[in-house]
Amino acid sequence: MTSKTMKAAVFVERDRIELREKPIPEIGPDDALVRVTTTTICGSDIHIRKGEYAVAPGLTIGHEPVGIIEKLDSAVKGYKEGDRVLCSAVTPGGYSSACLCGMHSYDGGDNQHGWQIAGGWRLGNTIDGAQAEFFVVPHAQANLAIVPNQLTDEEVLMVPDMMSTGFSGAESGKVGIGDIVAIFAQGPVGLCATAGARLSGAAKVIAVDGLPNRLATAKLMGADHVVDFTKVDPVEEIMKITSGRGVDVSVEAMGSQATFENGLKVLRPAGTLSSVGIYPQDKDLTIPIKTFGQGVGGFKIVSTTCPGGKERMRQLMEVIAAGRVDLKPLVTHRFKLDDIEEAYDLFASQRDGVMKVAITV
Amino acid sequence: MTSKTMKAAVFVERDRIELREKPIPEIGPDDALVRVTTTTICGSDIHIRKGEYAVAPGLTIGHEPVGIIEKLDSAVKGYKEGDRVLCSAVTPGGYSSACLCGMHSYDGGDNQHGWQIAGGWRLGNTIDGAQAEFFVVPHAQANLAIVPNQLTDEEVLMVPDMMSTGFSGAESGKVGIGDIVAIFAQGPVGLCATAGARLSGAAKVIAVDGLPNRLATAKLMGADHVVDFTKVDPVEEIMKITSGRGVDVSVEAMGSQATFENGLKVLRPAGTLSSVGIYPQDKDLTIPIKTFGQGVGGFKIVSTTCPGGKERMRQLMEVIAAGRVDLKPLVTHRFKLDDIEEAYDLFASQRDGVMKVAITV
Amino acid sequence: MTSKTMKAAVFVERDRIELREKPIPEIGPDDALVRVTTTTICGSDIHIRKGEYAVAPGLTIGHEPVGIIEKLDSAVKGYKEGDRVLCSAVTPGGYSSACLCGMHSYDGGDNQHGWQIAGGWRLGNTIDGAQAEFFVVPHAQANLAIVPNQLTDEEVLMVPDMMSTGFSGAESGKVGIGDIVAIFAQGPVGLCATAGARLSGAAKVIAVDGLPNRLATAKLMGADHVVDFTKVDPVEEIMKITSGRGVDVSVEAMGSQATFENGLKVLRPAGTLSSVGIYPQDKDLTIPIKTFGQGVGGFKIVSTTCPGGKERMRQLMEVIAAGRVDLKPLVTHRFKLDDIEEAYDLFASQRDGVMKVAITV
Amino acid sequence: MTSKTMKAAVFVERDRIELREKPIPEIGPDDALVRVTTTTICGSDIHIRKGEYAVAPGLTIGHEPVGIIEKLDSAVKGYKEGDRVLCSAVTPGGYSSACLCGMHSYDGGDNQHGWQIAGGWRLGNTIDGAQAEFFVVPHAQANLAIVPNQLTDEEVLMVPDMMSTGFSGAESGKVGIGDIVAIFAQGPVGLCATAGARLSGAAKVIAVDGLPNRLATAKLMGADHVVDFTKVDPVEEIMKITSGRGVDVSVEAMGSQATFENGLKVLRPAGTLSSVGIYPQDKDLTIPIKTFGQGVGGFKIVSTTCPGGKERMRQLMEVIAAGRVDLKPLVTHRFKLDDIEEAYDLFASQRDGVMKVAITV
Repeated sequence: MTSKTMKAAVFVERDRIELREKPIPEIGPDDALVRVTTTTICGSDIHIRKGEYAVAPGLTIGHEPVGIIEKLDSAVKGYKEGDRVLCSAVTPGGYSSACLCGMHSYDGGDNQHGWQIAGGWRLGNTIDGAQAEFFVVPHAQANLAIVPNQLTDEEVLMVPDMMSTGFSGAESGKVGIGDIVAIFAQGPVGLCATAGARLSGAAKVIAVDGLPNRLATAKLMGADHVVDFTKVDPVEEIMKITSGRGVDVSVEAMGSQATFENGLKVLRPAGTLSSVGIYPQDKDLTIPIKTFGQGVGGFKIVSTTCPGGKERMRQLMEVIAAGRVDLKPLVTHRFKLDDIEEAYDLFASQRDGVMKVAITV
Repeated sequence: MTSKTMKAAVFVERDRIELREKPIPEIGPDDALVRVTTTTICGSDIHIRKGEYAVAPGLTIGHEPVGIIEKLDSAVKGYKEGDRVLCSAVTPGGYSSACLCGMHSYDGGDNQHGWQIAGGWRLGNTIDGAQAEFFVVPHAQANLAIVPNQLTDEEVLMVPDMMSTGFSGAESGKVGIGDIVAIFAQGPVGLCATAGARLSGAAKVIAVDGLPNRLATAKLMGADHVVDFTKVDPVEEIMKITSGRGVDVSVEAMGSQATFENGLKVLRPAGTLSSVGIYPQDKDLTIPIKTFGQGVGGFKIVSTTCPGGKERMRQLMEVIAAGRVDLKPLVTHRFKLDDIEEAYDLFASQRDGVMKVAITV
Repeated sequence: MTSKTMKAAVFVERDRIELREKPIPEIGPDDALVRVTTTTICGSDIHIRKGEYAVAPGLTIGHEPVGIIEKLDSAVKGYKEGDRVLCSAVTPGGYSSACLCGMHSYDGGDNQHGWQIAGGWRLGNTIDGAQAEFFVVPHAQANLAIVPNQLTDEEVLMVPDMMSTGFSGAESGKVGIGDIVAIFAQGPVGLCATAGARLSGAAKVIAVDGLPNRLATAKLMGADHVVDFTKVDPVEEIMKITSGRGVDVSVEAMGSQATFENGLKVLRPAGTLSSVGIYPQDKDLTIPIKTFGQGVGGFKIVSTTCPGGKERMRQLMEVIAAGRVDLKPLVTHRFKLDDIEEAYDLFASQRDGVMKVAITV
Repeated sequence: MTSKTMKAAVFVERDRIELREKPIPEIGPDDALVRVTTTTICGSDIHIRKGEYAVAPGLTIGHEPVGIIEKLDSAVKGYKEGDRVLCSAVTPGGYSSACLCGMHSYDGGDNQHGWQIAGGWRLGNTIDGAQAEFFVVPHAQANLAIVPNQLTDEEVLMVPDMMSTGFSGAESGKVGIGDIVAIFAQGPVGLCATAGARLSGAAKVIAVDGLPNRLATAKLMGADHVVDFTKVDPVEEIMKITSGRGVDVSVEAMGSQATFENGLKVLRPAGTLSSVGIYPQDKDLTIPIKTFGQGVGGFKIVSTTCPGGKERMRQLMEVIAAGRVDLKPLVTHRFKLDDIEEAYDLFASQRDGVMKVAITV
């Protein structure tokens, strides 16, 4: 197999991700080689492309794969070649201090202290990723999740990152039965946060965005109210919707000062802002001090990264299989791997109402 | 009793708190009249004096009383006149939505939504306070806490605010057995946070301040390491103490950008900053975005106000009675109520190593 | 008003609850007098009738009211006569130690220690209840919950007890997104637990009962699978449904050894049995020791009583108003207050597929 | 090395554990070979010896080792041969569903569902254990914990099981600052639970046992009150100590009906019984139904097994290194490995006030 090659979307240099020929990778101990059937492009891939997030030139990009096990290390039990699987964007090893504390997203791997910011994100970041014909799943025993037969690739394509991240926005905010929740920004992660808030029992789910198609999708995901910030002041509008009370939990799903600040402003005292957005590195974040009650308002700000591992993936797929949520509407465009550069252009430009693209191989 | 008067420390106008004669107050339904035996001055009283925190002119100041029940409304059960009691700075009613959610510090009283920032803080804020010969405990049934016989007034003087607030710094940060904790600022609240972290099982308690006497007291309160920020960079020093790992929880007990920021910088990924300081109202708070991992670091920022109510007070007094902590070292100066203006001058100037003053009546 | 009388369902002696004339009650401080429009009969009322649960002869029974405020003590703010309201079966005062710990169901009232088993249940237990033309809401400020205009009496009739208790089965079990949950017994509380598990994000909800109409209603409440224990062994069947894995959480909603035991048997290691049933007082409960892993299985058994207070009621009504759940199917029969003895006969006999009866006044 | 042999305590048959010659084991992938310097005997080893807990004949017993790394698989990073280490009785792999849920004690390894009762307990149970000159640490990357230089073997000998298990009794009971806690049975695990309750901030720690030397040691571990059940009724005595209120948390550290039942009887309403004892397999456990409030008392029963993994071990050793607790008093007798059969006889008979034995190699 060493002589064989495959196509892969490779980061070449700033503004250049290209489809190139690379050798099909070998597997090491505890690894699985997966033949990709469907994958997608993430906002963070666009950051990589723009040079805003540094990865090694030559790296294969992508961390949201669905595919078929092509080859398994003999140490990996409970799977067989030919199984249809996916793995999360975050592929924890399970043995670092962070993992042993149940915080797999901050998996420090072999580092001395065992904790690392976004340390669990390996695919398309620190090792070759999944926008390719084949890729290697590290720590396969902890990360391979069987896709139920009745679900199509596209039905589970949001599971590895968008759904896991977005749902964690609601979960980390501890949304419970009867809560009022506002979700700021209705991109793919925000839409999943909207669905997650609804699934957690929120009695009132308020979705904020400025694009009509996103607000329409937000309703499909379970929003009771949608607020178009291009037409009304979202803070005023949410205070009106809640009769001046404010919300129990707000979710920031954008990564901007405006949404962060509005998320705080609509909270009732002692409310929680759950942040899942990624903020630009060149601008510090400001907490408006009066909104924050000068420290005595009892507010909480919690931030979360995509939870990974096979058990998380299994649970999310069960949620879809049970018909609790349908995330297919998030896939607005479809491409072949051969056309992935075109897909990148579309996705980067956010033209044509694109939310997520499905890349089939 | 209507013709009788008493002495009370009254906010007159900016920079003027004066001891004046006022009528001894009448009690209404659910109230208790308490004859104060010992009280103290809080940093927030200084904010009031400076005009930085607005209260009604003529209001009696003070929210940290120990005293004797002088008179009880007939509806209040389980107490009798002559009982030695204290009540918290926060005196919740128990019936607002916030209270019914277990969040008594944000007690909205009769307001429509039932939540209010610092709404549980009534004494010396929205009603007459305790720097007087007598004061009225509102919602007495929820707030009167019997002082165990074996404890002196001074031994429990920190209970109503400093201890309850400082301990909540450790509690809200969910400090557990084996954690590494840093506490920024060792004023009375910070010292109590240090004691609270130690009592919660932290294996390493690191106290930061710039005054030698406060650092010495921090050691008495249970700090394993003290860091003098006038001599070393506290972030570097804490990273050295923790071999580069960082702390699980940091407590901000000052209310300043510098301590807030340092509190974040020393956290391990997914660590918690627990904030109990009160920040100046004229300056927004900045989260350094790289320290925050651009949102993917898994950090939590939680803020808490003094928990109140008789059960909290009972528990804290049991902690003292059991000899778990001795907070008497926080009382550095003693005054008679007649000399309270002098006490204010000393406390406001932070001269002579003052930490807390005991005012006896 | 002292000369006026009303009709009330009164416990006379064992096996006799009768409709009698009683004086319309006076209100005391903090009270509200409510004119009942709709109420219902609870399983615990049947226990009272059978003499299995002791109350004072002459007591008016009932704790699940919807009605109109007739008269308000002047101390109660934020309501006015004529408001349509309900209150919970549990009417906490808010000032006991239990309430101050956020555990309002165990409200000890004025007792020395502040905790009491089922202490929050006053109506139709320790004070006159709501199966009458009028009743008094104690601690009205903490307990009056406005019914949204768009909801009918019958739509909210399950809120005061069945919904609050049943939902707490899911909540205390900490059901989260993706969990597998089994609910044992589909009486009114069990059906609400089924709805609560579904609303909490469970990916698989399995309802167990022996009556076809209850299993059919369970499907309406959100059960994915129903198990008829008269036809199959429920433990075997649930293990089959979960491919041998077991469930994350099971809810006991009956109060019997069989359902308790089966609830334990279907748990995966470290799973939680959440118990909301009331067990007969003459038979101890047995934990099968092998099922329990001899103590090393990591299992949890948590028990909960109806959470009360106006905020809980508000949240549950918001859940209904938002269309998240429709509990009207639980009301199978309707009676006038004049015919309440007949309603008792029907409900006690569990004839004609009765689940809950609506009693209109 | 294949020709070399070592001494090991081997289960031969019921009532026979003998010191035998066995080959020094080979290491596989992810393994470490450790040369044992100190180990000890556990109550569960006695169950094995008596045939009450089945293991394969020929198995080396023991799961509480301190030693020196002799050989490391090349995949294991961050350690070197010669490092002094220990590992827990529970050695999780980190990749099963249970581990990925943060529940490492129930590690299902490769089993289909990923959960298993006591599945994390491998040493001396499903693989050769540590009462030998050498043993293999499975999943070494997740389980090797460096012993700080300043601590002797004996100072950390309780860490792998007694301390981790006993402390979890307090932790799972969620003991917090100001709580009142009773610990039933003061064997090694109970004594550690006593220390753990004290370290968690309990204001009143009540230790129950029937042996004077254990009660004396309980005081060293932090008990404020000791109750000798041979002299007084422990339930009555605890109610007296708590002025009739009862305790917030009780810990069962024996595994018997009597202690379980008493643990429930002394709880205040809505209190928690935390069980860490191992119950005999031939007798079901009974919950006295009136004590349990017939299900409406809000009680919780939580059970926990020894938490394992290197991070847990690190934290516990930091607690000892910081001087928070000294567990050396639990070691009452010392033996050479050559005399381990004699140690078994002593420990099994519970003669001479034995609590734990140190076995040096």
